[in-house]
Amino acid sequence: MFESLPGFREFYPEECSRRNHLFRIFRNVARTFSFREFDAPVLEPLDLYVEKSGEEIVGQLFHFTDKGDRQVALRPELTPSLARMVAARANSLRRPIKWFNVGEHFRYERPQKGRLRAFYQFNADVMGEEDVAADAELIALLVAIFKACGLGANDFRVRLSDRVTWALFLSSLGVSDEQRPSLLDAIDKSERRKPEQTLESIEGAMPGRGEEILSGIEEMKTVSTFDALNERLVSFGEEGERRAGEWAELLQLLESHDAADCIGIDLSIVRGLAYYTGFVYEAFETSVESRALAGGGRYDHLVKKLSGNVDLPAAGFAIGDVTLTDCLDGKKLLPDYIDAPEIFIVAGENERPTALRDVALLRQAGYSSAYTLKRQAFGKQFKEAGRSGAKFAVVYGEQEVLENKVKIKDLSTGAEVSINSSDLLRNLRSLEESGGIAADG
Amino acid sequence: MFESLPGFREFYPEECSRRNHLFRIFRNVARTFSFREFDAPVLEPLDLYVEKSGEEIVGQLFHFTDKGDRQVALRPELTPSLARMVAARANSLRRPIKWFNVGEHFRYERPQKGRLRAFYQFNADVMGEEDVAADAELIALLVAIFKACGLGANDFRVRLSDRVTWALFLSSLGVSDEQRPSLLDAIDKSERRKPEQTLESIEGAMPGRGEEILSGIEEMKTVSTFDALNERLVSFGEEGERRAGEWAELLQLLESHDAADCIGIDLSIVRGLAYYTGFVYEAFETSVESRALAGGGRYDHLVKKLSGNVDLPAAGFAIGDVTLTDCLDGKKLLPDYIDAPEIFIVAGENERPTALRDVALLRQAGYSSAYTLKRQAFGKQFKEAGRSGAKFAVVYGEQEVLENKVKIKDLSTGAEVSINSSDLLRNLRSLEESGGIAADG
Repeated sequence: MFESLPGFREFYPEECSRRNHLFRIFRNVARTFSFREFDAPVLEPLDLYVEKSGEEIVGQLFHFTDKGDRQVALRPELTPSLARMVAARANSLRRPIKWFNVGEHFRYERPQKGRLRAFYQFNADVMGEEDVAADAELIALLVAIFKACGLGANDFRVRLSDRVTWALFLSSLGVSDEQRPSLLDAIDKSERRKPEQTLESIEGAMPGRGEEILSGIEEMKTVSTFDALNERLVSFGEEGERRAGEWAELLQLLESHDAADCIGIDLSIVRGLAYYTGFVYEAFETSVESRALAGGGRYDHLVKKLSGNVDLPAAGFAIGDVTLTDCLDGKKLLPDYIDAPEIFIVAGENERPTALRDVALLRQAGYSSAYTLKRQAFGKQFKEAGRSGAKFAVVYGEQEVLENKVKIKDLSTGAEVSINSSDLLRNLRSLEESGGIAADG
Repeated sequence: MFESLPGFREFYPEECSRRNHLFRIFRNVARTFSFREFDAPVLEPLDLYVEKSGEEIVGQLFHFTDKGDRQVALRPELTPSLARMVAARANSLRRPIKWFNVGEHFRYERPQKGRLRAFYQFNADVMGEEDVAADAELIALLVAIFKACGLGANDFRVRLSDRVTWALFLSSLGVSDEQRPSLLDAIDKSERRKPEQTLESIEGAMPGRGEEILSGIEEMKTVSTFDALNERLVSFGEEGERRAGEWAELLQLLESHDAADCIGIDLSIVRGLAYYTGFVYEAFETSVESRALAGGGRYDHLVKKLSGNVDLPAAGFAIGDVTLTDCLDGKKLLPDYIDAPEIFIVAGENERPTALRDVALLRQAGYSSAYTLKRQAFGKQFKEAGRSGAKFAVVYGEQEVLENKVKIKDLSTGAEVSINSSDLLRNLRSLEESGGIAADG
């Protein structure tokens, strides 16, 4: 009754702990890269997404008319909101603007393995810096996050490509600026389509030249070394030479950033969205399933398009939580869920007030502390203490409290020590460091 | 252009850092109380809320029909989802179930100071335990969170009341179980209404007895000590005596929990919602504005009502982030926003690869590290380093790198030391502990 909606997840404590584990890694690594966290509304004007992605995006959105007659949508992605926020304060924000977000996003799509209607993304963007060093900084961050998750260079691969290289190549074939988008779209989709379909699309854009252009494209897609790439770029003239220099610089920077071991040149990546303008990349698992883990690239004109007046170079990427969690889970890289307090308090009927005062003290000192809420006999309380998974029980018996003492019991060895109650915190700290109470007391 | 929607917030890094500061306190304190974090979808079937709160709730919701023709709503609160989740696993969850959530909620209301259309709440609930100790545990958690925020016993007050006490009192006046809800509703609203309006409501429910009942109610609302309360409860007979015992127990427990100093008996609190069944409370600032900071209580029958078959006693509360942030901000209790890396790297043109390798190392070691992304002259890099707010610059000059050395410069004193580059991490740790490099080197 009232089941949750398809494609939406309930996070029981175990799943919530896994989710938060990822969030913690995202935040910690982004902080070391000196990125700042920001957030934007999860509900936005529908036009914000239509302006960026065209009318066809509407079919994938949760959108509606609110009670104030506004067309609104649950955010499918963060970039439009980010562009608005940065543009609004473009004059006062120190550059480069290095921001990240961990937030929920929504798409009305058929739920399937690895794809849900509500999902989290880690987004990182650098704005106000056109230098290739900004692209390198982002890719290094992406790689550092995967490594912090426990993935090794053999577990994933960042496939690096370039819209500028594709543009130069297509120009060399006589493809005009106007024809280019439909060809890039055909290249993007060619991975998931039959060759005949790709040929048809290309033929549609460049009548009579489909076969020739397709074979050129297929040949470009085989490029996987810098030397092979360099050779082609140089053949495109001065602009190609300059771009080859930027590729060399990027690869050198990624080497310095200790990220090169999981990066490969792969021109089959072009990214579906029209607004990318430079280096683009997608990260995949290296397993048979080869799930997509992340994607991003440079989008230098989008801020201008969305803000109308602020022109800011920009680049960024997003990691989704659904496939990453599946991937880490399959490799046993998610931490065990620990549902245990550190301390369990056991007290006699009359000693309960004294014991609860110590519970307050222990909690203020940062110890996760529990006790049986209902009054129960000693035996039952010890049973609960054992069941809780706590390392130590702190025991308040009649005699102890009379003498201002408490007992600390190591629930794994069963050994216990009696101490002055005023020494409780100090003793617990020592026991934590020494690893517990030996069975001989 | 494309402004964000009214009542929705953009979190620039400074505001995001304040938000996260609150979230951290919520999570840390809840953990010491041995509560587990969970989460539920932000979009749910509309019926879930209608079933709990009645049709009138729909007027306050963001709701719509999705593309699959489902009536859905952005969650205005968490309790219905929680009840569903707990009921679904009632047999396997260890009791008491102590869960919390930090999440966003949505209401379509007129935005005003302290009230937005999208807001965060901390929710904590104990399920499966009817003992008053569960109520005490929750109120102690509420108080501990406010204290961890830096609020003192003079800054806020938890006003404690009881639906059972009100039911006994109203019964003693001859009010039937059926008439009670409308009287409780009148009492709840009496704080915000003219006396004539309250009188009219009471008169509507109990024709001819309005004046008499209103004066009885007004008299009850003056009760502020346990003795005065006890006297009245005892006059209601055996059930009253039992409830007086439970009040005494609750107050004693709150005393033990070190929470009594900011709690007062105040029967004017009844909480608007119909489903509360026992002790209820609201927390307010003690300032002139007396903003409501939190509210909660026991709701023993709601899980059954929402699940249809699972009967679980339950109690819980919620803290909203909007008024709490305003309150802490007014008292200067929010931390300063620090937008600075710990380390800024400065390197010569040819030394950049070596320097970037150390950036990767520093980041892996947890240091927030930055550098000018674009290649720049030494002077400009030092200017950026100073502007960044970093404590230390690590400097890679031509001569240093040739000798496998680096310089660490204390940007506050201007003093610097030259060290072997392999000793960088060790030296930084020492400098952190000693507080920096003295001006004499």
